Amino acid sequence: MTTPKLGVCYYPEHWPEAQWAHDARQMRELGLSWVRIGEFAWSRMEARPGSLTWDWLDRAINVLGNAGLQVVLGTPTATPPRWIIDKYPDMLAIAIDGSVRKFGSRRHYCFSHLGYRKECARIVDLMGERYGSNPHVKAWQIDNEYGCHDTILSYGASAEAAFRIWLERKYQDITALNTAWGNVFWSMDYNSFAQIQLPNQTVTEANPAHVMDYRRFASDEVVTFNKIQVEALRLHTDVPLIHNYMGRITEFDHFAVGADLEIASWDSYPLGFLEDRSDQGEDFKHDFMRQGDPDFQAFHHDLYRAVGRGKWWVMEQQPGPVNWAPYNPKPLAGMVRLWTWEAIAHGADVVSYFRWRQAPFAQEQMHSGLQRPDGGPADCHNDIFKTAMEIKKLGPVQTKQADVALVFDYASAWAWDTQPQSQDFNYFRLVYEAYSGLRRLGLSVDILPADTENFRTRKLVLIPGLFTWNDKLKTAVDNFKGQVVMGPRTGSKTEDFQIPKNMPPNIDGFDAKVKSVETLRPTAPIDITSGGHIYIWREHLETSCDVIEVGGDGAPVHIRDDNLHYLAGWPDREAMARILSNIANAAGLDTEDLPTGYRRRDLGRYTLHMNYGASALKLKSFTLESADIAIIDNETHKRLI
Amino acid sequence: MTTPKLGVCYYPEHWPEAQWAHDARQMRELGLSWVRIGEFAWSRMEARPGSLTWDWLDRAINVLGNAGLQVVLGTPTATPPRWIIDKYPDMLAIAIDGSVRKFGSRRHYCFSHLGYRKECARIVDLMGERYGSNPHVKAWQIDNEYGCHDTILSYGASAEAAFRIWLERKYQDITALNTAWGNVFWSMDYNSFAQIQLPNQTVTEANPAHVMDYRRFASDEVVTFNKIQVEALRLHTDVPLIHNYMGRITEFDHFAVGADLEIASWDSYPLGFLEDRSDQGEDFKHDFMRQGDPDFQAFHHDLYRAVGRGKWWVMEQQPGPVNWAPYNPKPLAGMVRLWTWEAIAHGADVVSYFRWRQAPFAQEQMHSGLQRPDGGPADCHNDIFKTAMEIKKLGPVQTKQADVALVFDYASAWAWDTQPQSQDFNYFRLVYEAYSGLRRLGLSVDILPADTENFRTRKLVLIPGLFTWNDKLKTAVDNFKGQVVMGPRTGSKTEDFQIPKNMPPNIDGFDAKVKSVETLRPTAPIDITSGGHIYIWREHLETSCDVIEVGGDGAPVHIRDDNLHYLAGWPDREAMARILSNIANAAGLDTEDLPTGYRRRDLGRYTLHMNYGASALKLKSFTLESADIAIIDNETHKRLI
Amino acid sequence: MTTPKLGVCYYPEHWPEAQWAHDARQMRELGLSWVRIGEFAWSRMEARPGSLTWDWLDRAINVLGNAGLQVVLGTPTATPPRWIIDKYPDMLAIAIDGSVRKFGSRRHYCFSHLGYRKECARIVDLMGERYGSNPHVKAWQIDNEYGCHDTILSYGASAEAAFRIWLERKYQDITALNTAWGNVFWSMDYNSFAQIQLPNQTVTEANPAHVMDYRRFASDEVVTFNKIQVEALRLHTDVPLIHNYMGRITEFDHFAVGADLEIASWDSYPLGFLEDRSDQGEDFKHDFMRQGDPDFQAFHHDLYRAVGRGKWWVMEQQPGPVNWAPYNPKPLAGMVRLWTWEAIAHGADVVSYFRWRQAPFAQEQMHSGLQRPDGGPADCHNDIFKTAMEIKKLGPVQTKQADVALVFDYASAWAWDTQPQSQDFNYFRLVYEAYSGLRRLGLSVDILPADTENFRTRKLVLIPGLFTWNDKLKTAVDNFKGQVVMGPRTGSKTEDFQIPKNMPPNIDGFDAKVKSVETLRPTAPIDITSGGHIYIWREHLETSCDVIEVGGDGAPVHIRDDNLHYLAGWPDREAMARILSNIANAAGLDTEDLPTGYRRRDLGRYTLHMNYGASALKLKSFTLESADIAIIDNETHKRLI
Repeated sequence: MTTPKLGVCYYPEHWPEAQWAHDARQMRELGLSWVRIGEFAWSRMEARPGSLTWDWLDRAINVLGNAGLQVVLGTPTATPPRWIIDKYPDMLAIAIDGSVRKFGSRRHYCFSHLGYRKECARIVDLMGERYGSNPHVKAWQIDNEYGCHDTILSYGASAEAAFRIWLERKYQDITALNTAWGNVFWSMDYNSFAQIQLPNQTVTEANPAHVMDYRRFASDEVVTFNKIQVEALRLHTDVPLIHNYMGRITEFDHFAVGADLEIASWDSYPLGFLEDRSDQGEDFKHDFMRQGDPDFQAFHHDLYRAVGRGKWWVMEQQPGPVNWAPYNPKPLAGMVRLWTWEAIAHGADVVSYFRWRQAPFAQEQMHSGLQRPDGGPADCHNDIFKTAMEIKKLGPVQTKQADVALVFDYASAWAWDTQPQSQDFNYFRLVYEAYSGLRRLGLSVDILPADTENFRTRKLVLIPGLFTWNDKLKTAVDNFKGQVVMGPRTGSKTEDFQIPKNMPPNIDGFDAKVKSVETLRPTAPIDITSGGHIYIWREHLETSCDVIEVGGDGAPVHIRDDNLHYLAGWPDREAMARILSNIANAAGLDTEDLPTGYRRRDLGRYTLHMNYGASALKLKSFTLESADIAIIDNETHKRLI
Repeated sequence: MTTPKLGVCYYPEHWPEAQWAHDARQMRELGLSWVRIGEFAWSRMEARPGSLTWDWLDRAINVLGNAGLQVVLGTPTATPPRWIIDKYPDMLAIAIDGSVRKFGSRRHYCFSHLGYRKECARIVDLMGERYGSNPHVKAWQIDNEYGCHDTILSYGASAEAAFRIWLERKYQDITALNTAWGNVFWSMDYNSFAQIQLPNQTVTEANPAHVMDYRRFASDEVVTFNKIQVEALRLHTDVPLIHNYMGRITEFDHFAVGADLEIASWDSYPLGFLEDRSDQGEDFKHDFMRQGDPDFQAFHHDLYRAVGRGKWWVMEQQPGPVNWAPYNPKPLAGMVRLWTWEAIAHGADVVSYFRWRQAPFAQEQMHSGLQRPDGGPADCHNDIFKTAMEIKKLGPVQTKQADVALVFDYASAWAWDTQPQSQDFNYFRLVYEAYSGLRRLGLSVDILPADTENFRTRKLVLIPGLFTWNDKLKTAVDNFKGQVVMGPRTGSKTEDFQIPKNMPPNIDGFDAKVKSVETLRPTAPIDITSGGHIYIWREHLETSCDVIEVGGDGAPVHIRDDNLHYLAGWPDREAMARILSNIANAAGLDTEDLPTGYRRRDLGRYTLHMNYGASALKLKSFTLESADIAIIDNETHKRLI
Repeated sequence: MTTPKLGVCYYPEHWPEAQWAHDARQMRELGLSWVRIGEFAWSRMEARPGSLTWDWLDRAINVLGNAGLQVVLGTPTATPPRWIIDKYPDMLAIAIDGSVRKFGSRRHYCFSHLGYRKECARIVDLMGERYGSNPHVKAWQIDNEYGCHDTILSYGASAEAAFRIWLERKYQDITALNTAWGNVFWSMDYNSFAQIQLPNQTVTEANPAHVMDYRRFASDEVVTFNKIQVEALRLHTDVPLIHNYMGRITEFDHFAVGADLEIASWDSYPLGFLEDRSDQGEDFKHDFMRQGDPDFQAFHHDLYRAVGRGKWWVMEQQPGPVNWAPYNPKPLAGMVRLWTWEAIAHGADVVSYFRWRQAPFAQEQMHSGLQRPDGGPADCHNDIFKTAMEIKKLGPVQTKQADVALVFDYASAWAWDTQPQSQDFNYFRLVYEAYSGLRRLGLSVDILPADTENFRTRKLVLIPGLFTWNDKLKTAVDNFKGQVVMGPRTGSKTEDFQIPKNMPPNIDGFDAKVKSVETLRPTAPIDITSGGHIYIWREHLETSCDVIEVGGDGAPVHIRDDNLHYLAGWPDREAMARILSNIANAAGLDTEDLPTGYRRRDLGRYTLHMNYGASALKLKSFTLESADIAIIDNETHKRLI
């Protein structure tokens, strides 16, 4: 049990040095105790090759630390200075259309470029040497937002050379690759690894097995890139290493990157994400434009808690309008507090706002901060002050292991990107709608990676849309006594992106085969006799299992064999909630149909109640205002906050 | 009169040799007598340059032939192996944006590349030598689906060099070209053929005469490419040569390619085509999502019957969900049988399903077949068995020359692609809506190329949207006593893509001039006083002809001089049906307004009745279930099937 | 006071010489007195490098001049012949995606290419030498439609080299540039000017200061390019020099180009522009599809009157359907006359139609003219004849300085293109909706550049969305006693694209600061308590000014301090009209709410009344038919026309 902390992102290099101490004092007065710095400052650390300037950073850390702030120091590798591109012009990434992604913003590098990797190791080693034992530097952030701006996949010569080596290591000989990929199909056989190219710009779709290996490779390159910095820093420091992930980025395996770090963190922009990367319809986006999707933050909190093996932060919390979504409204007054408390309830150790003061220049000058560019307080200022007071008042808290778990697997996202079979099929969306269905029932959820070996004391586990089984997960399912929900599409491929000999879902002892699959235009969902619909994806089964629900097309929707459930299609939100509710009840869990916008999260001793809605909610024992939270003591039933 | 046959596409190289005989036996048991093989197997015939391996193919043909199947052997030139690209890196096509269309799927070649043409001649010669007199090989398929994946137009150096030669051959001197193209217009005059480039990536639209010649050239290159293989095979075999065309591909002149082949065939995917390449609205697509557009198959059957000069097949018939449309639903039970019978009624000698067994690997693993990947029967299995029985029962049939003919001209498609004048104008759509209007009246239709010299005993001929008149067609119109319907846009250009001196429609003795043209936003169709509307395209005439129908704008819609009719605009579906009905009646044809989804085709002695609708239809003398067909003897009025 | 003239665009090189005299006579008979020629004829003046052929042009000018027509001679630099590209392959512009914009249409050049500039100087010098004192050549047009087809911005080596020089001239040393741009932000600091690239194809958005300087540079290049021709011609002639601008092109500063020319002209295509470049909704486009937006022409007339410092023409007036919009309908009968009179009422000295006879060949063969391709009269013929008669009848006219002025600033358009902050924010649209709001109140408007020093006797000045203040405009505001309306976004940046230290709107003595900005999805406008809404853009203020109107969100919408007004958001059309009406009334101006489609323009002694609507309007003293105009004598109240 620890008391959560608040923090902020700060850029001393953007402001006159004379202002630093004043800023630091104001941060403390607002109730902040962490400050992240440095992650974009390479050109000020090393203005020319080898010409290193640390003194300003020494002083900045000192000023902040002396004010009582703990520093997260960022490695600046997301923004290589211009002179490095002079040295390695081919380090720039290549877009899928073959064009160069030029210098002039950020993340302008290919993960596979060996020269750039060396530069990163060098600068990180130098920083580690200088600040590894600095008493104020209590954590490090490596790079910044891997994958932001579609930067995982690069299609240039560096990536191609590395991909060939990766393939040769995996397959040893080219015949094995040809067989695994089924290259006989369109005379796609290769005679040597040197003939293999990246799978972009093919005349029609490339072989999905080819694409899938490229996607695995690309993810592995991120892990390797990150590990180089981890290893450089570990020579100099013992404090935790962190990366700040983003929302709905699936292009690399966050679990694999996270395995090399002590803490996972993410950058939570509820309003930006709702406009920019949500599957919700226009009405929903309208209703929640100033609050964010009530499940989106929670989903990522739970995901990154898993990535961080329990240790996680919000590194950047949206404080007001951002500058990058199609529309950038203000949050409702209170939402910054609500978002902060929600993160805490999901177990965040630190919630850090982005950024201290709105910059008057460059790309993000329209991105709000805790202060206006002129130093006046921004709208969120009071929200944050109030939250800091409340945190202090409540004291130590701890999130609780959930009874329900949901498997999220990055490889499955790559697989179904590669082979959607319908323009509406998307793995993230499938898992997210299952998550959202559970939340709507009032359930707290843990997220698990696909290589989980043991579901422990959980009562209900969902494994929707899993690309392929691995031995650990099979063992976990075999040994589990709780309810397991699979489908649609679960276990539908082999590792080699082939349909398994036994046919999907390919589970020993579960007598069901997916005979055929169809995808449905949005106008043509299939009724379920017990309510709601199957949409997007429909499977037809050959099975001896119990049929629990049936579609208007006469075919099974939900089948069951003992504790194993399979859904032969993608239930819409109504059907998802009902089916999951029935199974959850069978698992011994109480469920409830929460009103729109109302959400809860179990905090062990407490329960957090949140109203994401635009109007007040009359709950059983109290009224919850719009954008307000309540923390109820589960024993005394008293509202503490 | 012959009895139609059924067939299937098979890939022995995808399956263990041990399974071949079993597969062949099952094919026969299902009622199939043809099997197509080999068209994607180059890398298994020649794994490295010059290293030829025929034994597996010898054995495959043997096994299939010995089981009683007749083999169509495909030349594998749609899938050049990877090592050929090492030899000729510049054989890959170049997209309109200048990017290379890379190896890794299929159809990765430029038709103009001389090196690749030589490779094709070589492999085809070798195959001809080995299998030209094989007793089981009863036909050959050359290449596969020319034009699929937008592969006719390439913008690279090979095409540019060939285009210059083509132009020099056509125009002899550069001044003639400058005059023909009207290059004076924007100082576009050339000093030599060597200065001419392909018409992509110009600052604004290129000269339409430039584009039109490029489109003619590109079509000619397909003809030449195909002819190289025809000539190579003709040295070794006398059996029929076939190509399998696609649906709604207009980028090359199918009649010109077809002139070098004995049989035309096409690949009929009713559900895929409806989602992927139909102009129908969302409601229509919804209503027919599991049946296909009731006129789309018939149109192509009639088109390819013309391309094959009466000899034609369906080479690939959709058997269940495909993998390539935006949405891929299952057909209604019965539709595979309906589609098969429809093809037969339009004169198909063979209907061949794609494919025998669903592949568990590579690009088309989600494309259904007659068997599931595990060898179980797919949904269509019974449909096909039943159809095979019925065919046997009915015995020999023959399609009948229709009283109505419709001119379809690929050059007109190129012309109006080049100069649509409205974002909604499309030549295929115009012709197709006329065809559909005729079908809705219960009429059977023949399709004719634009160089038809004689309309023979037909009663009604339609020539909508013809780019330019040629002497043969003029003669045909002059000598014809039946009704001729022209317009809109018919005869509106010279060969050189200029407005004719006499103004459109440019018919001697027909006193009408198109004074001006306007195109209409979808919200603003023009009422026709007798019902329906003119939409998309409207012409204003100067004429002394009889005015039969008039628009709400006071200008003529339908004019007539004796047996010549001209439509001064694009009638919507309601107006199209009425106008065509009136003219058909004047031509002595009975018409009827068929209910939605109900279609008929004249088989001479029999009539085929089809219900594409989702519910049963009560017809005069019988009820036709959804997705069902009836074959009625025209003399006895008995329902035979 | 002069009597306006009519003219036409003519291409003698397109027609047999034998026809020229006949054409010229017909022009005169129709009432035309000006003819523009030559602007696309370079390949006929110089078919090969240095091989000059003037005789045909000598004769053409002679024939036209002798018929009594005054000639505008165009320099042909918008259409460099093919052989120049052989000489300078790198003179072609480069698109934002890095691809070459090839020869084969027009405007295929980069403004920065030094070789091409030399070629232009050379041909223009030669033309000047030959025709500079030709008695029939009464004006010159330089080039044609700068900016048409997105041709201002080029991303190739010529532009890059010139941009570096431009930057070095502006900033002198690289540190100054780094500071001005805020390059510290993402380590974007440069070590030398040679490292700076053009701001395309960056990974995410480039630094807005970088883009802004590139946009200023690109505009300056147009000015320089134009000036080279001005200087060449000035050596040979004293007649006015003109350029023909387009509608809604904001990529270069027309005021700066116009400063070097005697007359501004523009090409007015009301129907094409409505379909192609209007923000109006579908219903509006439907209602005005045959008339054009009732304010679009007027806006540009007023804009180009300012660019021409009072001297301006319509160089190309749409005569019937064009060929380049998504849909190309015919104008209502009468509209060509209405458009002509409207231009005259706004002060046009000449209205010239495009083009004499519809060309039967090349790109614009579907673009109508005054004659059909066969020489018959096109639909507009009578309209024009009638207009010519009426002009003669009315005699000399003069437009009047308006009481209301509106500042239009090209740099602001570049700024907000660069940083829209909402996908719906557009500077042209903002200014245009203000203009339209004023017109709807019956007010005549003058447009002013942002460097206006003195508002003179005007009563009301609007300065919406101004990027940054300059000293002249500040002085003008300070000294003005009339009402000034600013906002939203006015004065919100410094020259360096930074938020000003004082915060926007950054006006000394006006106590208001924009604390924060939000942008609104189209579904979520903010009510204004007095009616209408704020949409797209909303600002929140800290102010001691009088609050005149308030939003439903409780924040000020319209504030006032003495004669200065500020709008804290973008009013929708209803709110715009009401707010402007109130302020106009406060300025002592009478306003009226004009019916839809009805517009007026003050001509001093006369008033022009126009009915852009599709049905007749009952006005106070007369009925105005659809597409009709009335000219009323303001003293006698008699309808003269």
